[in-house]
Amino acid sequence: MKIHLPGAVEATCQWDEEQSASMVERLPRIVRRLVATCGTERCYEHVSSAPLPKRQAVVEIVNLGRRIIFPGYFEDGPLDRVNLEYHLGQETVRLYELLAEQISRAVRHECLRQDLECTHCRQRGDEAAYWFIEQLPALRELLAEDVRAALEGDPATSSPDEVIFSYPGLLAITVYRLAHALLHLDVPMLPRMMTEHAHSRTGIDIHPAAEIGRRFFMDHGTGVVIGGTAVIGDGVRVYQGVTLGALSLPRDQVERLKSQKRHPTIGDDVVIYAGATILGGDTVVGARSVIGGNVWLTRSVPPDTRVIMAEPELRYIGPK
Amino acid sequence: MKIHLPGAVEATCQWDEEQSASMVERLPRIVRRLVATCGTERCYEHVSSAPLPKRQAVVEIVNLGRRIIFPGYFEDGPLDRVNLEYHLGQETVRLYELLAEQISRAVRHECLRQDLECTHCRQRGDEAAYWFIEQLPALRELLAEDVRAALEGDPATSSPDEVIFSYPGLLAITVYRLAHALLHLDVPMLPRMMTEHAHSRTGIDIHPAAEIGRRFFMDHGTGVVIGGTAVIGDGVRVYQGVTLGALSLPRDQVERLKSQKRHPTIGDDVVIYAGATILGGDTVVGARSVIGGNVWLTRSVPPDTRVIMAEPELRYIGPK
Amino acid sequence: MKIHLPGAVEATCQWDEEQSASMVERLPRIVRRLVATCGTERCYEHVSSAPLPKRQAVVEIVNLGRRIIFPGYFEDGPLDRVNLEYHLGQETVRLYELLAEQISRAVRHECLRQDLECTHCRQRGDEAAYWFIEQLPALRELLAEDVRAALEGDPATSSPDEVIFSYPGLLAITVYRLAHALLHLDVPMLPRMMTEHAHSRTGIDIHPAAEIGRRFFMDHGTGVVIGGTAVIGDGVRVYQGVTLGALSLPRDQVERLKSQKRHPTIGDDVVIYAGATILGGDTVVGARSVIGGNVWLTRSVPPDTRVIMAEPELRYIGPK
Repeated sequence: MKIHLPGAVEATCQWDEEQSASMVERLPRIVRRLVATCGTERCYEHVSSAPLPKRQAVVEIVNLGRRIIFPGYFEDGPLDRVNLEYHLGQETVRLYELLAEQISRAVRHECLRQDLECTHCRQRGDEAAYWFIEQLPALRELLAEDVRAALEGDPATSSPDEVIFSYPGLLAITVYRLAHALLHLDVPMLPRMMTEHAHSRTGIDIHPAAEIGRRFFMDHGTGVVIGGTAVIGDGVRVYQGVTLGALSLPRDQVERLKSQKRHPTIGDDVVIYAGATILGGDTVVGARSVIGGNVWLTRSVPPDTRVIMAEPELRYIGPK
Repeated sequence: MKIHLPGAVEATCQWDEEQSASMVERLPRIVRRLVATCGTERCYEHVSSAPLPKRQAVVEIVNLGRRIIFPGYFEDGPLDRVNLEYHLGQETVRLYELLAEQISRAVRHECLRQDLECTHCRQRGDEAAYWFIEQLPALRELLAEDVRAALEGDPATSSPDEVIFSYPGLLAITVYRLAHALLHLDVPMLPRMMTEHAHSRTGIDIHPAAEIGRRFFMDHGTGVVIGGTAVIGDGVRVYQGVTLGALSLPRDQVERLKSQKRHPTIGDDVVIYAGATILGGDTVVGARSVIGGNVWLTRSVPPDTRVIMAEPELRYIGPK
Repeated sequence: MKIHLPGAVEATCQWDEEQSASMVERLPRIVRRLVATCGTERCYEHVSSAPLPKRQAVVEIVNLGRRIIFPGYFEDGPLDRVNLEYHLGQETVRLYELLAEQISRAVRHECLRQDLECTHCRQRGDEAAYWFIEQLPALRELLAEDVRAALEGDPATSSPDEVIFSYPGLLAITVYRLAHALLHLDVPMLPRMMTEHAHSRTGIDIHPAAEIGRRFFMDHGTGVVIGGTAVIGDGVRVYQGVTLGALSLPRDQVERLKSQKRHPTIGDDVVIYAGATILGGDTVVGARSVIGGNVWLTRSVPPDTRVIMAEPELRYIGPK
């Protein structure tokens, strides 16, 4: 079961000088072995003159999108009424250029992967980047509602600035909404790269294909998982460690399930407390219902219902 | 329930050239729409000549504080007895300057938000930064005790260097102790920005207003949530996924609860194992008690008591 | 229980100018207090001309290792057949140099800590760096199998590029496999620094000493904890929030347990669903068994067995 590694080196502080030959001279042999496995199934590589999307560019796209949606919060210098249009113009053009380039890379790669000719990948990038930017005013309004939902849902804050600056839940929903818009424009790869960047920063894992309504609030957020076919209504509140996931599936059915709805549907104004797990594509939680902490749910719940764990049995062992 | 997005673009590799007009020319129209929503309730922005605190400066404050508290671990070059005072002097002045600037920004913003005149925001920044730095020697001793608690509590380590370099729990408690000191100086915004930075890096979410005693040790840490009115004694040990949270609250009571104690009180030398959830402002866990893994607790526990889940009922389904 | 902080400053927007003396002049006194605690037990510091490993170098080692294993995914420019050998040669030499330097720092520090003379620390660094690099071709094949396991195990993806670019589970297993190889070369400090870097980015906490077989797949991953004496077979699949941990231990036994197997053994082709906790060094999960979500397991399970929670009792409280 153990992976055997060649030539374990003795761990002594007094090292035998004999062993310490000129290691650098031996490196080229290893490099040739590395080159030799490229292009075989023993290696995943992308050795091609067609460049892939760049992770760092995707991070910059996320940051630019956030700066355009919440102007004045994340810039280096101050914004005022005079420089605002100029500033937003610059940021928007920059976002357009970055996005167009990265989308065309992603599309070209996808075409190659499917052995399709990529005759207009560059135009496709321009077009999709434009339509994405066209949605930024609407996305900004959607996200302003998410900020208000946080202010209403969390007794520990009263300042929208704190929410925008600091709340991981707002970062995650911002990136999700941007990625979801790109996904609707049939952009490959980038949406998932964006949400996984947010996942890394927040511990909140939202698949870009999930459908999430208005006024969504996640408190704390670490460990939240929302699957790609989940559908979430308006005004929903979710706490840390909540999973909206798939029922376990036998390995041979993984392929077949790719096109099905595997994750639950959550009605408007539902609250789901920390650590609750809701599983299955047929599971529907009715509007205004409340799912208690740690509840494990694989069946539908009617509207206006509170579901809580039966008081868990605890054992108290006192001092001798 | 689905958010409808305008004009979804066809996903074909062979693109119709007709559609691909000069998109850049159409961008200014979108920029004007973005400018138009600024200053309305459809947008959260900070368009003002008074600059907000900067996230990057807050990160640098955290890093400087950590370098001053654990000298020699996070610097680029080596420290020796000769350059130590010079080096600490430089770092301390740099921290003072950064902090004074960021505090005055936060205070000015808070004054404006409350329509108060901000006559001495700059001096306020200087003063609070000074009193913060005045506490660094005491904070260093407190954190040295936290390092020792990690060494005592974790059978997998024997080296304080490993704890200081690598343990997410130590990073989180370090940032919490710095942020908590700033909060006691009534500095707005920055404390939460600091702890959320640590949350992002560690998955550990400690509200800066929580009161945490000496010799605190968190192992693994991912998913830990400690609410703002939690009170934790000395020598407490906590594992991954532990929540010290609030009982669920009806929406209309969120506002009223803002000033109450909503999170539990944990006595000296308590151990709380992974995944345990302790809720409610009246819940008190007595000194030296042990809360078992996954326990869900909403009532007080006397001192010297072990609380474990009743053996959970499992079903074993063997091979056919 | 509360930590008392000196001289809390009044929080008023109108500040009393009297109080605001020249703070900078008072800083040197604090610096002298900081210097005075260095070298005492009230402070952990590393004031020594022997430099410690650098966190940033460790991050760069991780990134270089990943670029060499998956060429073409994380570079700035495109790779083609012409520049491939040249490029891999450069990266490999760079990795060798960085590693040799950081290993010799770690070894020298460990020798000093144990009061041993460090006569050949530099050669030790060269040697261990070489043997590490010698394993990269084998590690690449191992990780290609992990990518294929992700493609087989996750119905939401079909592209290896998405897995390599975006899956936190792949990042975590990549860093673990690199760190584990270093650990087998008896390199101190660096392996844990590497896995804690991955922990920070993914929420997945794998101790570098754990033994993990081929074709390992973690989906979502946030909150996964795998202890240092865990042994995991081939083809194992693990979901978010799974703990392979130690049974709780009385404080006085922490020291004694350092050398024992404290974490479970997982057989080939086992699947462990989200939130399951498996504890104890004697706990063995037999091959091909399936552990259901949220199961809490402290006993061994025979092969080919499905273990699920008894249907948890829920209470439904309908509308009035």
